Parts: sequence; structure tokens; C-alpha cells
Amino acid sequence: MNSPVDAKGPEGRRLTKPGRKTRERIIEAAAELMFHRGVGGTSIPDVQSAAGVSASQIYHYFRDKQGLVLAVVDFQTDTKLDQQRPLLDNLDSIDALRAWCDRAADRQDAMGWVGGCEIGSLASELAETDPLARTDLAASFERWEAPIRSGLARMQARGELSESADVTALATALLAAVQGGMLLSQIRRSSTAYRHAVSAVIDHIESYVPR
Amino acid sequence: MNSPVDAKGPEGRRLTKPGRKTRERIIEAAAELMFHRGVGGTSIPDVQSAAGVSASQIYHYFRDKQGLVLAVVDFQTDTKLDQQRPLLDNLDSIDALRAWCDRAADRQDAMGWVGGCEIGSLASELAETDPLARTDLAASFERWEAPIRSGLARMQARGELSESADVTALATALLAAVQGGMLLSQIRRSSTAYRHAVSAVIDHIESYVPR
Repeated sequence: MNSPVDAKGPEGRRLTKPGRKTRERIIEAAAELMFHRGVGGTSIPDVQSAAGVSASQIYHYFRDKQGLVLAVVDFQTDTKLDQQRPLLDNLDSIDALRAWCDRAADRQDAMGWVGGCEIGSLASELAETDPLARTDLAASFERWEAPIRSGLARMQARGELSESADVTALATALLAAVQGGMLLSQIRRSSTAYRHAVSAVIDHIESYVPR
Repeated sequence: MNSPVDAKGPEGRRLTKPGRKTRERIIEAAAELMFHRGVGGTSIPDVQSAAGVSASQIYHYFRDKQGLVLAVVDFQTDTKLDQQRPLLDNLDSIDALRAWCDRAADRQDAMGWVGGCEIGSLASELAETDPLARTDLAASFERWEAPIRSGLARMQARGELSESADVTALATALLAAVQGGMLLSQIRRSSTAYRHAVSAVIDHIESYVPR
């Protein structure tokens, strides 16, 4: 929440410290509601009462619901990636990949697999109804995939993955396994699908480790 | 749409032939709207005007919106699995697995990756807001996964996959790759993510083929 964009209102003017606090409180309340009820099931009056602000404050900071949705996408992406750090920035061994995926499963186990992936859920809901959000979510997935790719590239540079491994393709495949596994596990309320999905891709990545 | 459940109204009474036709027309209109706007973005009046029926007809056949949503889940599952036949029922070679995944990619390419997976989108939207739909969607995914698992099991029984392959886990992993790959490709409007996701898992399955 410290990027220059986040410290400005919709017209790009700088916000005061209390203004920033209010803006953050609105985003957090909206993110929580949208996670549980979906974007479509969350109205501006819902956000008002959850954040304890007036409608005019919401319109002041975000102009409209779409502006608020875009801020929620950024907030959930920042939060999700921060949660995964430092593991996410050190995915340069097979063990590190497994530990990172296990950590996400343990976190979901603790929540009974209720809610699924914050970013995946927004992506599925907004892909066809909000072109700006879709573009933002493409950037979110890229921010998530880049550290996976970069960990694999470091392994390859050190000779720990064969030259024949396409690290870009493998990073995408692992993020897809995370997303697809999360969705199946959310629907089934069990970690099994997620664990099978990520294991298959990590086992495949391991097949590129020179013996 | 030929199961006994589908030929009955909400109180389980049998429908006449025109009644079944009207019911099907409502489901198809609702499915189309929900695919483009989401379940939350589709109201009963929207369905009325798309299907050219009265509100009382919709309530007659489905009791409430939730009843209609469950019928749409079944309809989309039947449609999706029928689309994939006969490939889906013959996934007992590596080539057949690749052909099946390619066919889905070609179909999405033709639509510019707009809309994503009908079942995955419903799953993501309804998982936390509609417990009955979640249970139905778990059954939908199982209906999809079973033929994958059964194809792999036939390969294994013929000695074309090693005994050490866990065909249940591999089938789940492939369905997760399809789902996660579809979502990333929908957001990115490009087949690349989907193709990388399913290739990684099929390559992994191929590693169990005895040389």
C-alpha cells in the first residue's frame, strides 16, 4: 500500500495521512466483503457500513465502484505476495518449491479450504465484466509468476536444471497448478486436489534436474 | 437433459412435453446469461426476457433462483462433457490426452479465450455463496475427472503406465491443470498458459510410460 498510486486520490492528488488511513480502511473492508460475497454481491452501502464511512467518502477516494474494485485487486495482490515472502523470492531449489506449495496448503487447511485464492476468485469473477480489472489481474498473475520463473532460471544458470527446461513454461504450469488445484480443493473442501496438482508439476520440474 | 430429475418440476411431478421444452428454454437462456454476466449479474427478470417467459413460469419450474442455478450447473456439466465426447471417453494413450487438451485449446482459440470454462466459472462464483451448488459442482468435477482416471487406469492395466503411477492423483492433476490453465489463459487472452499447464502434466504422465 506504499506505492505512489496508492497514496493518491482518483484525480491523482496526494492524500493527507488521515486520508490515506481512511482510504486503506475502505479498501480492507471492501476486500473482506468481496472475498466472502464476491464483487457482484458487495454494494457500496455494504462497504460504507463495514468501513464506517459515508458514501461520499468512498466516491471521494475511488470515484466509483470500479475504482474501488481496482484498488482491491492491487491490495489483494500485495497481500497475497507479501504472505508468501520470503519463500516466494527463494524458489531456486526443488525443496523450496515444495515447501512454498506446502505452506499454501497448510494455510488453506487451517481455513478448511473456505474462500479459495483471493486473486483467482477475483480473476474468475471479473474477467468478462470489467476489462480494466482483467488487465490488472493479468499484471497480478505476472507479479506472482515472475519470482517462480526467476527461481527456476537461477537453478538453470547454476546447472541445477537442464538447459532443455523451458523455465517460462514451467513457471506458468506451476502457477496454473496452484490456481486449478486451489479451485478443486475449495470445491471439495480438501487439500488433496491441490497437493496432487502441484506435486505433479514439481515432479515434472524435478525431471530436469541433472543426475 | 434426459435424466429423470430434469423431466420433473420442483415438486417432483412429471412435466408434459411442452413443459419440458419451456423448462429447457429457460435453463439455456439462464446458462447463457450467467456465463456472460455471472450468476450474481443475472436476475430473474433478465432470464424472463431472454427466454420469453413470465416470472411465474420460472418459479413454477424452479421454485427460486437457487433452483434455477442448480439446473444451470447440471446443464453446463452435461453440455461441457458432451462437447468433449468421444475424446473424453478414450483417454487411454498419451496421444489421446494431448489431442483432448489441444481440442479444448482450439475451441477457446476460436472464441479468443473469452468466457473461460463454464464449470470453473460457476465453481469460483458459487463455492462460498451457495452450498448446494458447491456440492453439485463437486459432483460435476468428479464426472469430468472420472473418465480421465479411467483412461489412465486402462493404460496401467495394459502395462502402458508403470505400476508406480498413482492414476487417481494424475487425473486430478490434469483436471487442475485444465482449470488453472483456462483461468490464466482467459485473463491473458492467449492459449499459451493453458498449453504450458496441460503439457507439463501430460509430460509428467508420460514419464510413467515404460520404455
